[in-house]
Amino acid sequence: MDYRLEEDSLGKVKVPSDKLYGAQTARAVENFPIGEEKMPTEIIRAYGVVKKAAVLANYEQELISREKRDYILKAADELIAGKLDQHFPISLWQTGSGTQTNMNVNEVLANRISEMAGEEPGSKKPVHPNDDVNMSQSSNDTFPTAMALAAVSRTEDFLLPIFEKLQTELEQKAEKYSDLVKVGRTHLMDATPITLGQEFAAFSAQITDIIEMLKDSLKYIKKLPLGGTAVGTGLNTKVGFAEKAVKFINLETKNSFRVAQNKSAGIAAHDSFVNLSGVLKTAASFLMKLANDTRWLASGPRCGIGEIKIPKNEPGSSIMPGKVNPTQAEALFQVAAQVMANDTAVNIGGGSGNFQLNVAKPLIIHNILQSISLLGDAVKSYNQRCLKGIGANQEQIESYLDSCLMLVTVLNPIIGYDKAAQIAQKAFKENLSLKEAAVNLNYLTEAEFEQYVDPKKMTEPNLE
Amino acid sequence: MDYRLEEDSLGKVKVPSDKLYGAQTARAVENFPIGEEKMPTEIIRAYGVVKKAAVLANYEQELISREKRDYILKAADELIAGKLDQHFPISLWQTGSGTQTNMNVNEVLANRISEMAGEEPGSKKPVHPNDDVNMSQSSNDTFPTAMALAAVSRTEDFLLPIFEKLQTELEQKAEKYSDLVKVGRTHLMDATPITLGQEFAAFSAQITDIIEMLKDSLKYIKKLPLGGTAVGTGLNTKVGFAEKAVKFINLETKNSFRVAQNKSAGIAAHDSFVNLSGVLKTAASFLMKLANDTRWLASGPRCGIGEIKIPKNEPGSSIMPGKVNPTQAEALFQVAAQVMANDTAVNIGGGSGNFQLNVAKPLIIHNILQSISLLGDAVKSYNQRCLKGIGANQEQIESYLDSCLMLVTVLNPIIGYDKAAQIAQKAFKENLSLKEAAVNLNYLTEAEFEQYVDPKKMTEPNLE
Amino acid sequence: MDYRLEEDSLGKVKVPSDKLYGAQTARAVENFPIGEEKMPTEIIRAYGVVKKAAVLANYEQELISREKRDYILKAADELIAGKLDQHFPISLWQTGSGTQTNMNVNEVLANRISEMAGEEPGSKKPVHPNDDVNMSQSSNDTFPTAMALAAVSRTEDFLLPIFEKLQTELEQKAEKYSDLVKVGRTHLMDATPITLGQEFAAFSAQITDIIEMLKDSLKYIKKLPLGGTAVGTGLNTKVGFAEKAVKFINLETKNSFRVAQNKSAGIAAHDSFVNLSGVLKTAASFLMKLANDTRWLASGPRCGIGEIKIPKNEPGSSIMPGKVNPTQAEALFQVAAQVMANDTAVNIGGGSGNFQLNVAKPLIIHNILQSISLLGDAVKSYNQRCLKGIGANQEQIESYLDSCLMLVTVLNPIIGYDKAAQIAQKAFKENLSLKEAAVNLNYLTEAEFEQYVDPKKMTEPNLE
Amino acid sequence: MDYRLEEDSLGKVKVPSDKLYGAQTARAVENFPIGEEKMPTEIIRAYGVVKKAAVLANYEQELISREKRDYILKAADELIAGKLDQHFPISLWQTGSGTQTNMNVNEVLANRISEMAGEEPGSKKPVHPNDDVNMSQSSNDTFPTAMALAAVSRTEDFLLPIFEKLQTELEQKAEKYSDLVKVGRTHLMDATPITLGQEFAAFSAQITDIIEMLKDSLKYIKKLPLGGTAVGTGLNTKVGFAEKAVKFINLETKNSFRVAQNKSAGIAAHDSFVNLSGVLKTAASFLMKLANDTRWLASGPRCGIGEIKIPKNEPGSSIMPGKVNPTQAEALFQVAAQVMANDTAVNIGGGSGNFQLNVAKPLIIHNILQSISLLGDAVKSYNQRCLKGIGANQEQIESYLDSCLMLVTVLNPIIGYDKAAQIAQKAFKENLSLKEAAVNLNYLTEAEFEQYVDPKKMTEPNLE
Repeated sequence: MDYRLEEDSLGKVKVPSDKLYGAQTARAVENFPIGEEKMPTEIIRAYGVVKKAAVLANYEQELISREKRDYILKAADELIAGKLDQHFPISLWQTGSGTQTNMNVNEVLANRISEMAGEEPGSKKPVHPNDDVNMSQSSNDTFPTAMALAAVSRTEDFLLPIFEKLQTELEQKAEKYSDLVKVGRTHLMDATPITLGQEFAAFSAQITDIIEMLKDSLKYIKKLPLGGTAVGTGLNTKVGFAEKAVKFINLETKNSFRVAQNKSAGIAAHDSFVNLSGVLKTAASFLMKLANDTRWLASGPRCGIGEIKIPKNEPGSSIMPGKVNPTQAEALFQVAAQVMANDTAVNIGGGSGNFQLNVAKPLIIHNILQSISLLGDAVKSYNQRCLKGIGANQEQIESYLDSCLMLVTVLNPIIGYDKAAQIAQKAFKENLSLKEAAVNLNYLTEAEFEQYVDPKKMTEPNLE
Repeated sequence: MDYRLEEDSLGKVKVPSDKLYGAQTARAVENFPIGEEKMPTEIIRAYGVVKKAAVLANYEQELISREKRDYILKAADELIAGKLDQHFPISLWQTGSGTQTNMNVNEVLANRISEMAGEEPGSKKPVHPNDDVNMSQSSNDTFPTAMALAAVSRTEDFLLPIFEKLQTELEQKAEKYSDLVKVGRTHLMDATPITLGQEFAAFSAQITDIIEMLKDSLKYIKKLPLGGTAVGTGLNTKVGFAEKAVKFINLETKNSFRVAQNKSAGIAAHDSFVNLSGVLKTAASFLMKLANDTRWLASGPRCGIGEIKIPKNEPGSSIMPGKVNPTQAEALFQVAAQVMANDTAVNIGGGSGNFQLNVAKPLIIHNILQSISLLGDAVKSYNQRCLKGIGANQEQIESYLDSCLMLVTVLNPIIGYDKAAQIAQKAFKENLSLKEAAVNLNYLTEAEFEQYVDPKKMTEPNLE
Repeated sequence: MDYRLEEDSLGKVKVPSDKLYGAQTARAVENFPIGEEKMPTEIIRAYGVVKKAAVLANYEQELISREKRDYILKAADELIAGKLDQHFPISLWQTGSGTQTNMNVNEVLANRISEMAGEEPGSKKPVHPNDDVNMSQSSNDTFPTAMALAAVSRTEDFLLPIFEKLQTELEQKAEKYSDLVKVGRTHLMDATPITLGQEFAAFSAQITDIIEMLKDSLKYIKKLPLGGTAVGTGLNTKVGFAEKAVKFINLETKNSFRVAQNKSAGIAAHDSFVNLSGVLKTAASFLMKLANDTRWLASGPRCGIGEIKIPKNEPGSSIMPGKVNPTQAEALFQVAAQVMANDTAVNIGGGSGNFQLNVAKPLIIHNILQSISLLGDAVKSYNQRCLKGIGANQEQIESYLDSCLMLVTVLNPIIGYDKAAQIAQKAFKENLSLKEAAVNLNYLTEAEFEQYVDPKKMTEPNLE
Repeated sequence: MDYRLEEDSLGKVKVPSDKLYGAQTARAVENFPIGEEKMPTEIIRAYGVVKKAAVLANYEQELISREKRDYILKAADELIAGKLDQHFPISLWQTGSGTQTNMNVNEVLANRISEMAGEEPGSKKPVHPNDDVNMSQSSNDTFPTAMALAAVSRTEDFLLPIFEKLQTELEQKAEKYSDLVKVGRTHLMDATPITLGQEFAAFSAQITDIIEMLKDSLKYIKKLPLGGTAVGTGLNTKVGFAEKAVKFINLETKNSFRVAQNKSAGIAAHDSFVNLSGVLKTAASFLMKLANDTRWLASGPRCGIGEIKIPKNEPGSSIMPGKVNPTQAEALFQVAAQVMANDTAVNIGGGSGNFQLNVAKPLIIHNILQSISLLGDAVKSYNQRCLKGIGANQEQIESYLDSCLMLVTVLNPIIGYDKAAQIAQKAFKENLSLKEAAVNLNYLTEAEFEQYVDPKKMTEPNLE
């Protein structure tokens, strides 16, 4: 491979000729040959927004020339557009502040500008990676700012729309099956009736709340520590930088970020991310039940619950011919478990800062962005390839409902719990219908039984 | 021991004569000899509120007599006041719906009423545990309602006031030390200066947000599934029961609970609790750093950081005479780790419901209530016995600040990052002061150096 | 309450007159009003063994008089026998080294001896809590030694016998049902047959391995850091103390503890406990499946799987008369989830030591001992009250087996996977039996079908 | 893109012309657009070993022709050699049994053989993907077999050698610094002395045990469920298949796998993997402390502990010139936290099987293989780029040791704990040396003090 030499404060380093990064990035590639995971692209692109906003603020504060500003804007726009992605080779598992990634950004922008200006890469001309691209900034405030931009964007633009579609589909199913009465189940045991629509409506209510929880949690993430520089004090910034830079971030992202009142807190700790991860695992907890209920209701086809039918997406077995499995639900379940696990990483990382800096930033943002991606992808796939295609197995539903002993519950207010219990136990022991047992015990006439025991009415409160 | 016989739908059971519980409770004591943990008292008392509200609603709906109402109110008031605590012996580790505990409540109230009315315990006279005390209710809706009442009360009445006092104390420390400039530390390495006040202010900002997050999370908990009965449909309730019952809960608790729009969701799943637990672990993450920073800043006294002094509460060692340890911080750290762990239990429990019922209710509420208690107790103790007594070790702080090489950072805008780096490296390598190195390198005169390098000014943005 | 004054190196403290503890314990009660959890009794009693072994070693090394030795032995024996339990009031949530508990032990033994000798409590006569009772020891080496003694004893004497009984019962069930052929289920979907006995045999194989894993893990716990004193170096011990003390521990416990080759490692970190906790969560993972399979197989009675019947231990519902729930399985499930959560606490605690001391010792041992207790109690209860009473629902099992489409799998080697798949799909789509579909498709004659498709033969490899 | 049509039991599907996979793989690519993670290459290659061993066993059992055998062997060898990697595009997040991946293997081998034989891809000639490549196998037994092969190989061939090198390096450091006496620290507070060598020796002892624990855990993984086919019964295998196939696996891998006595257990659950993950998190717990101690001991350079110097691998800050950070330790810390988190995923996955199949297989193996990779890579990098380059800062070490008050501990056996405590407290309060305080208090003469208080002797037990 072809190399050029670049230099940083520790000396000269070889850099591949076809790459725009510089000495510090090259050192980082060498120093962190750990794992497969790279710093997420979302962070790289969010950094483009940060650098753009910073140079606009610096220009407004008369700290940088119009020429340098224009160069940096142009290069940053390329970064945002994803045109420079190939110049970011550093492992996720690097220093806990993300410094190597900030320097990677600074170097790539400076070198891209050198290229535009016809200068040598590494010449730090016409703009200097630290003095110009990084002006009024530190890794310590820009990296959590990029984390926030990435997390907000992935939540609002990617995850929430998918969750809202899930909510819509669940509501439609709730509507569609609002009259299909079926046996309810508690403790896995036969219980009083419910409609299949009510079953979907409960899921719809859950996702509705989770969407709200996610929005609540973004409030805290939107407070940016930008302008705090190294330790949150704003050293080497001019008063007003933070406000101006955040104004430009909002212009670029069409969002409503704010300057954190206390910037040190957002550098030394990441409670807002720990909290967001807490909502993501709440979503995972919901989805785990959705996945499980889906596969149990579809279990069978002949030796399980079998109340619903799910789409056959693929042959299910390499040895059992004709088998079809609830594979989307299984993928969703596994994703949910992973998101719960990722939350553990975020918690440990979040609690492990010291003094003025949390040094688990890459760990935290990796786990959060992975959780968001997995939840979004898996829910989207589950919705499209499973939920939308779910149909009711009416025959099975009716057969169960007819046999269910817990319909007896409706008799509590009429004959009391104790007598109702005797009916159910007699029916079970002697393999009778509830009506037979009730009449045999002389607690009700056949006519009375039929009047009171109406499964459909049992799915609502009494009108009187 | 003396016994009497009581009966339930499975037959007769021995009950200790001096206890007011009945057959089902006695079976549960026998059936669940698991662990030391009992169903939390907070749940038992919250159940008193539920039973009281239910009977008032039932009376308004003309389903129960005034006489029975008055009896149940009287007994429920005793339950709320803690007078019946000794009649609740069942293990936490019981059925996942908490049914045994609901029946324990029903039995104790019915038997206490029998006692009041001069009837035999177990006679189910003048009120029946199921038909009257449990009227319009099921374990499945009342237990999560009691969970919500307990969690809200413990958060609002116990935990939040303690967190607010911590916030106040941190703010006072921030004020008190707002002018005491000290070295900042990032990556555990010497960094640019900060005031000791700013260090406390960052913690204050963190707890301020966490208080807000806790309040956000209670919104979801305050939606009660009461009135849903067995599977959320409201079977065996009269339309309007839920609204009336919740109105009475609010009268009793002076709070603002609401009827859940979808009651099935609050019975089949507990996302709101999973989410609350997520905020508790966020608090734990914050407190872990607070505890760690406290002990590191106090480390020494002669061979550590030693910038602050903490109160000597006890001799620290059985072998090392005169040793004093940061014991409050250690207790706080351990509590924080436990709360993170408890969150894992809540997540697994929360994701493990099936169909119309989550059967990890005792697991979930136990872990949440324990987390709240531990956080509250440990923070209160830390605040009183450690934080309030913290003082600055001025001598040590000044000695560090004088020697810190990172003051060089302020020179970036003046001479550029690269030259500033040379100064720092020369000073370190040759064991010089920064000024000596700067002057030796001919980058600045002594006068210039003194003009620019003012640690106090480095704790804020530049005015111009 | 009546008080006396006791004194430690920080001054005088009030101590309740009826308690044998001293100044440091009284301070600790005051200083750690956190949570309900006390230092586990198992640790207190294990400390009795440690103190006894230490004084015997000290006497052999001619460091202490025979008179003092005899006093300490007598008092330690009372401690081991549980006679002094009421003098140990300190919260679990204390200093991370357990120093307060070691001093509590030292003080109680010294005061008990004062009592025996007719001296005043607090007189430190005839034995001194630090100089005599704690001779050649520190909290830092004795506390992890007590942790090890407690963990080993609870595992070997309590948990393993319960696991072995579970194993026996599972094996008996495997034997009993070795000929009862039933449908297998994979992905919750109907699969090829298995015997009910094979189903139990798989569980039996699992618990057999887990018992072995537990034994493996105790090897590491049995290496004691005793004799390391404050930082593992053995300061203030005489060469040979550790070996002698461990010899006496083995005499007392009839066990085979060893002196850790490196004592610092066992004070500064607790990898052996982190590892033991890893096996406990493996057991939890197994038990989670056992609990779940139990309740699913028993689900119904009419609208679920219903292949087994479990004992009816109690009425299952406050509203649904006659309902019986799998409550033992639910308790077991919740316990399993708690054990997984406890493991998280142990991991965080285990990873959080610094330099020469891990200060999460109470956290670690509390979670491990709770996990052991919960696993033992819950498995014992599940075994007695559920597993032993499980019976097969033959009718249901046969009805499922008859209808199962996956019996077609046995035809793969005869007609190939693709044709077998067509048979299964035709049978499912047209609601035929497999035989009908096979014959209709002309792939097999009726006679051939009957010859090949024999469910019982499908539960084993082919003989030829 | 160019396509061909392939067919499976659900119909025809488009497959890219340049790929060797077939219909089911193409469906899976379409059906699981979830996340970035693919099924690990280690699993794909391990599957090559399984298919090779299976065909050799089938041939020995006279179930397949020599010609087919030779084809399959040839194709499987290419798979093992990594030559077919590009034909495995399926997401990790697929069905929980890994069926799609087994079919991907079956299809690619069959098509590669078609290619070799001059047949059309998709022709299933001369070998059929199910009937021949998958003969005597199911996904359900082959996937966990491949999991085991991959986990064992990555642990034995990759991770253990790296851990052994770490052990060697730690031992060398222990040797090198065996005479360098320094202050010990407990509770972060100054404690009695230790040598720097002893500090490294403790880490060496820890990793030694962890290596042993890993080896213990592989015993259980090496029991293979191969031959169990769909539900562990061995349906569609000939007696002896499992033993023959495992014999061929051992020939290929030069390892010592065994046939699991109970194959159902290894298909329905993965306790051995849950247990291995438990050891990996134990390693993580150890490494977390190693990382933390490294960075704390190196903290400063002027305002921290600063007892050791670590290599300067890169500039540490984008804003603070000349800063050098403990980046390798930070990467190692983050990896350790991730491994603890991954363990949570494995636990949830491990506990979530039902009946005859655990359907969290991809989740489990992904997390385990990622943990192994991250631990191995991070430890290797930390060892090379940090540990090997660590040097002692003698000046700092000596200065601390001179000032340490806890040297007073050695006086306990001579003057008693209480007087020793007075010396330490007086020295601290009046800022004296211990000697000055001791002499002032008239507890010892200067000569006596110097005789007794010898830090070097304090790092060992007394000889007499």
